[in-house]
Amino acid sequence: MATCETRTVPFVLVGAGGVGAALLEAIVGARALHKARYGIRFSALAVCDSSAAVSGADAAGGLSDAEIAALIAHKASGGKLASQSGAVVRPAEQDASVFLESLVDKYSKEAPDTIVVDCSATDATVPALLKAATTANMRAASANKKPFADSSFRNFRELCLAPTSPARVRYESSVGAGLPVIAALARVVSAHDAVTLISGSFSGTLGYAGESFSAVVGKAKELGYTEPDPRDDLGGVDVARKALILARTLGMALELSDVVVEPLYTPELAELSVPDFLAALPTLDAAFAAKVAAAAAEGKVLRYAANVRPPAADGTGGGSLKVGLVAVPASSPLGTLSGSDNLVEIYSQWYAATPLVLRGAGAGAGTTAAGVLSDMVELANTRG
Amino acid sequence: MATCETRTVPFVLVGAGGVGAALLEAIVGARALHKARYGIRFSALAVCDSSAAVSGADAAGGLSDAEIAALIAHKASGGKLASQSGAVVRPAEQDASVFLESLVDKYSKEAPDTIVVDCSATDATVPALLKAATTANMRAASANKKPFADSSFRNFRELCLAPTSPARVRYESSVGAGLPVIAALARVVSAHDAVTLISGSFSGTLGYAGESFSAVVGKAKELGYTEPDPRDDLGGVDVARKALILARTLGMALELSDVVVEPLYTPELAELSVPDFLAALPTLDAAFAAKVAAAAAEGKVLRYAANVRPPAADGTGGGSLKVGLVAVPASSPLGTLSGSDNLVEIYSQWYAATPLVLRGAGAGAGTTAAGVLSDMVELANTRG
Repeated sequence: MATCETRTVPFVLVGAGGVGAALLEAIVGARALHKARYGIRFSALAVCDSSAAVSGADAAGGLSDAEIAALIAHKASGGKLASQSGAVVRPAEQDASVFLESLVDKYSKEAPDTIVVDCSATDATVPALLKAATTANMRAASANKKPFADSSFRNFRELCLAPTSPARVRYESSVGAGLPVIAALARVVSAHDAVTLISGSFSGTLGYAGESFSAVVGKAKELGYTEPDPRDDLGGVDVARKALILARTLGMALELSDVVVEPLYTPELAELSVPDFLAALPTLDAAFAAKVAAAAAEGKVLRYAANVRPPAADGTGGGSLKVGLVAVPASSPLGTLSGSDNLVEIYSQWYAATPLVLRGAGAGAGTTAAGVLSDMVELANTRG
Repeated sequence: MATCETRTVPFVLVGAGGVGAALLEAIVGARALHKARYGIRFSALAVCDSSAAVSGADAAGGLSDAEIAALIAHKASGGKLASQSGAVVRPAEQDASVFLESLVDKYSKEAPDTIVVDCSATDATVPALLKAATTANMRAASANKKPFADSSFRNFRELCLAPTSPARVRYESSVGAGLPVIAALARVVSAHDAVTLISGSFSGTLGYAGESFSAVVGKAKELGYTEPDPRDDLGGVDVARKALILARTLGMALELSDVVVEPLYTPELAELSVPDFLAALPTLDAAFAAKVAAAAAEGKVLRYAANVRPPAADGTGGGSLKVGLVAVPASSPLGTLSGSDNLVEIYSQWYAATPLVLRGAGAGAGTTAAGVLSDMVELANTRG
């Protein structure tokens, strides 16, 4: 029988609001489970936002649960970490990426088995994540899409496709929050099951149908399902990012600029301010309703979906990644989707007649944090 | 950047027909991928069936790909491994479980990082898997349900719920073949996301509707989707086994005898021979058609499903596991299921309004072997 010694698993968290705060809460809530079931205890060596990094009074021992609770409350009240006592404040002239990289550098020496956790929404974390991924024993878990989608394929390959990557890097919540899309796809890949198509609705905002277009978007924004500027969703770039991460996970050497994206709004709405854009949305309703009706006449429904087609095994075909409005049979998994769920279909050698389907909530701080926490537990059990 | 050295990952395979043969083929086919992407090479130290264990001419180096191909051909032609040259034949008086345990014992000394892979359908592998799970550095991957369902909860706990288990034991293909149900559930558990209900159709045989009951069962048997005696499916015991494995993964201390199972055939058909049972099946058609019609009148469809209800977080409720015919809304994920796909819904804190859904092929040697191979790649990256 196993010994019941508890291993301390140190981590450094970047991003302390929203998802980051939810992650810290989940970690504290899961202490008894993690000890009993996995023999581990997560220890926050530092928590950072764009202003500063905060460590506990006992720096080597990590932040205490009381210090974590105080930090969450401070952030929830709108405070910056720089105003916390003992904070290491980022010098105003220093780039955020340099600040974060130097922090990771410090822990790579002091606590080399640290997990670098990215719950921010910045691409300033790229150097820090690369550092963690390529430093012996360090590990990285990220809910942040940008280091995997906005950064170059070369960076992605170094982060996620190196032989050491499975042991060092996890990025589940960068696509569909905690919905285990990356985990499922990674299993399909490792089993050498050739993927022929990934088709997915990755955006809670855009999965709706049946109401007027402007009403659906307005409601989604109210519920916090959209980015601050809804065009980040409606323009398809957020969907493109998620689909690109899946395509790259298959090994496809694509850049974000290679993705063919059909936005859901007309070019003349692109330059407006956010309030003006929201006010102008009803002008799109009639054209959208006509498309819905045309699809319905064929027994189909509209979905805003991404289609990833890898090159054929014999190297022909080249592969493609397209994001746009598609009409799908109402009875297909994607067609039966309703509400704000995400849905991903994976077609492959072993999922040929019918796809492997994952469906469920794909947004929200709680489920996003849950995905990161699962990633951290997996990393705690990997070999460096 | 990572070094590109290739690590050899030794394994011993129990079960060389069907799934075992498909696994060996997949491993040979995936050699280039596994080297490039994961820096690993799987090496079969021994392959066993109930008659014998076979090693390669170069025992320490594992079976060559040519030896593997010859072995697959030998088994496909109906041969036993005992008739292969160099086979270590099980003594007639020795119990299969003792034979397998002694083999694992041998490799735990000679190659302590060996993965013990169970692609058999016997419970004789329990001691061998327990040995692997509890010996420092050894690992176990299984497509075989019986060690996890027919064996005691005490054994399951030692295999799968010990702090060292995540690094040592994988059993994805014991439920729904390669469909990543266990992987998804393990992530929900590790994120401390409290599960309130798992509802699933785990049996390709029984997911159909619309045809006569006897026609559906006859067709499923022809396609090889049923166990040799279809009552193993229709009696619900196979579904009960799969659901029990999910319940136990949540930590529920249940035995197979605790599962409440409603069979799909009447008691008088229980004692017949297989041919007589098949001949008598049409006598059930009228009653089944009446149930289908009654459900349809309410907008519902019939599914043969398992429902796992864990105890509430406050310890009330006790929890339950029931297998039987249920009427579900036609528009629910389970209701929209057709064909022979498996479908599992997981309701939890973060999947409350709508469940986390996994759907796809849940049977077949190819997809079952794919699930085992993913498990092996994961184990190759774990720390002992």
